[in-house]
Amino acid sequence: MRDFLPGEKSKRERILSIIRESYKRHGFDEIETPVAEDSDRLHAGLGGDNEKLAFGIMKRGLTQEDLQNAKDPLELADLGLRFDLTVPLSRFYATHRAELPSVFRSIQIGPVWRAERPQKGRYRQFVQCDIDVIGEASVLAEAELILASLSAFSALGLGEVTLRINDRRILEGLLESFGFPKAEFASVLISLDKLDKVSVQDILAEIEAKSKAPEAVRALEGFINRPQTLEFLPFGERQIRKALPDGFDSVAVANMVELGSILEAAIGGKAESLPLVFDPFLVRGMGYYTGAIFEAVHPTAGYSVGGGGRYDGMIGRFLGTDVPATGFSIGFERIIDLIEFDETATEDSVALIFDTGIDTSILMKLKAQLVSTGVRVRLERSTRNLKGLLDELAASGFSRFAQVGEATEVDQLTFKNLNQEHK
Amino acid sequence: MRDFLPGEKSKRERILSIIRESYKRHGFDEIETPVAEDSDRLHAGLGGDNEKLAFGIMKRGLTQEDLQNAKDPLELADLGLRFDLTVPLSRFYATHRAELPSVFRSIQIGPVWRAERPQKGRYRQFVQCDIDVIGEASVLAEAELILASLSAFSALGLGEVTLRINDRRILEGLLESFGFPKAEFASVLISLDKLDKVSVQDILAEIEAKSKAPEAVRALEGFINRPQTLEFLPFGERQIRKALPDGFDSVAVANMVELGSILEAAIGGKAESLPLVFDPFLVRGMGYYTGAIFEAVHPTAGYSVGGGGRYDGMIGRFLGTDVPATGFSIGFERIIDLIEFDETATEDSVALIFDTGIDTSILMKLKAQLVSTGVRVRLERSTRNLKGLLDELAASGFSRFAQVGEATEVDQLTFKNLNQEHK
Repeated sequence: MRDFLPGEKSKRERILSIIRESYKRHGFDEIETPVAEDSDRLHAGLGGDNEKLAFGIMKRGLTQEDLQNAKDPLELADLGLRFDLTVPLSRFYATHRAELPSVFRSIQIGPVWRAERPQKGRYRQFVQCDIDVIGEASVLAEAELILASLSAFSALGLGEVTLRINDRRILEGLLESFGFPKAEFASVLISLDKLDKVSVQDILAEIEAKSKAPEAVRALEGFINRPQTLEFLPFGERQIRKALPDGFDSVAVANMVELGSILEAAIGGKAESLPLVFDPFLVRGMGYYTGAIFEAVHPTAGYSVGGGGRYDGMIGRFLGTDVPATGFSIGFERIIDLIEFDETATEDSVALIFDTGIDTSILMKLKAQLVSTGVRVRLERSTRNLKGLLDELAASGFSRFAQVGEATEVDQLTFKNLNQEHK
Repeated sequence: MRDFLPGEKSKRERILSIIRESYKRHGFDEIETPVAEDSDRLHAGLGGDNEKLAFGIMKRGLTQEDLQNAKDPLELADLGLRFDLTVPLSRFYATHRAELPSVFRSIQIGPVWRAERPQKGRYRQFVQCDIDVIGEASVLAEAELILASLSAFSALGLGEVTLRINDRRILEGLLESFGFPKAEFASVLISLDKLDKVSVQDILAEIEAKSKAPEAVRALEGFINRPQTLEFLPFGERQIRKALPDGFDSVAVANMVELGSILEAAIGGKAESLPLVFDPFLVRGMGYYTGAIFEAVHPTAGYSVGGGGRYDGMIGRFLGTDVPATGFSIGFERIIDLIEFDETATEDSVALIFDTGIDTSILMKLKAQLVSTGVRVRLERSTRNLKGLLDELAASGFSRFAQVGEATEVDQLTFKNLNQEHK
């Protein structure tokens, strides 16, 4: 878990507020749930491997006898820190459904916790930014999520991010058409999930070693090696049909084609300008996806910066009746270093540098007068190393400084530009 | 712990962003620390009674044997949820001192947790908004905190909030001058702390029953019953001297007088316009205060909406060397219901109401075009109860709506004002 100093904190808040504003314009509403959920709910089998990483919060008022009698540490924890925002959202929706619009579009921005061994780029507390559309069964939900997400990336200056899209039902239909038995689907998908990192040959060898259906492996090999399968042309009916085997069709394919034409209409017919591709081998790990799945990839960073999909079954686990749901999550901690803000655009801010022994009343009068004009003001005692101080102030985002000296009124101060002098 | 629905969440975020911007203008910088701190640190005796309310986070990978061998539940928790933002700030400053300005003015806005029995107005997870000045020994720190806090209350439309100020050293000096033995100070202060809720007579009776110094109780009685002691005139030397016994003087009194003249200078000489009073019987519970103490009181709500003070000893506990520190905390959860925003001032937002069976492509095109002009857009399926839907949209802050019908372009839509029609 990390501390954030002013520079980093301000960058994080600025990014989050751009994402939030972008999502709000697209009709999403922000909600908040507590960081702790009931232990039972966190361990209900909806979080996959993440459940094992949940931090448990100890019951209050435990006696030594309680400890002696416990068969399992989990018995001592009635609450836990959430490991994602999807399980809490499902619980939230089940609790508040009557107070929410019939199609509910939520924004959730907040920390989650996973008890992983600390390592570079992995933290035990990190922020997730999710949007979800609950109650919409048609591909309108996918269309809204995709346009909102692409517009958030673009507002952040990450216009180069590409969205890959697939459908769990297409994936399973393909495996079925190749002749894999249902029992092998999960294992084959685990191998295919590594296509970004491992060569096609190695993946096929891995699948061959596990599978009892050698002809299915041959069929997969033939399909995956066609040049058009992974050509990744601009999204739309033409690319979807080309990337799939001839004559392969299903409700999921029809949905995907419909989504293509909706998106094309939304952006005014220029599908090429939409950074979106159909990827028949996109897998996405989580078991709860039931339809479309997405992954956002940054071309130069080479890693995923977001993802999501349709999970129509999950809310039913809390509510009793199934409710369609689709979500997208930005990998907030992964995009921070990819974003550079132009710092010259920040508001007017002034450092008033004073010498020890100055009349504090005059100092506070100068500060109060400047603040009242909307300027950000920091008082700084002068040091022998003035250059070092000015550098620090410039790095902290201050745009100007003035040495107070004998001045008693604001108009007696001489302001100098910090950036010009020190960058 | 509570869920926040869109209306409440949006109000909370708006209040926090006003506070944040106000504090930033006054030269404070926002930081963030993790929600969990080491158990040892949370139970180091700095949090007073709140330490007992800390939620413990269980160690990972505990075995049944670990449970059997534990003498105390605390042994099973290596981390805990923070119960305030002051202990984490002290730890943060001790860790990062070299990277921070010599006088560090911090903003912290974030949740804290206390395992209290849930009751009206008390929550187990709640947000605190703190500002602190670390490294400033002079009353400049108090002056900056007071002006920043008053300006935040005023920006929130809570200009009627009054700040009471006192100094722990003045309090103790008074008790000494009345003749109370040092051993009785804590007990007398606990009684005096109730002056807002209990009559002077009852408090004196309570002190008399506990004290072994009846003359001291008489001296206190004589002082507290003078009309000028609790007259609460506008802050400044005249009121401070009037409110204290004749001839009573000390470094703390001189500091308080100096603070008065600095504040008067800062606001241009009109002390009467500053909602600030010296209260010689303001106590503030926390044991770590060493100098000035403040409390913000809302006149009609009648309860405290913030408080703080100087705590010069605490950071030394983590750092080894003492560092002066002063802080002020806004009682965020207590001000929310006192604030009313003018909702007509919100941005342009449109609900597009459509009938089932519409061409989704056209719908998404209309939405995308409106969003691209900076308007907030929500799609809504029409219902039989159109009035109910429009009321809900107005309550959600939407300013206009249009029924899509046969329209295929934005200029074919007829927008109607939601507020005019439905409020």
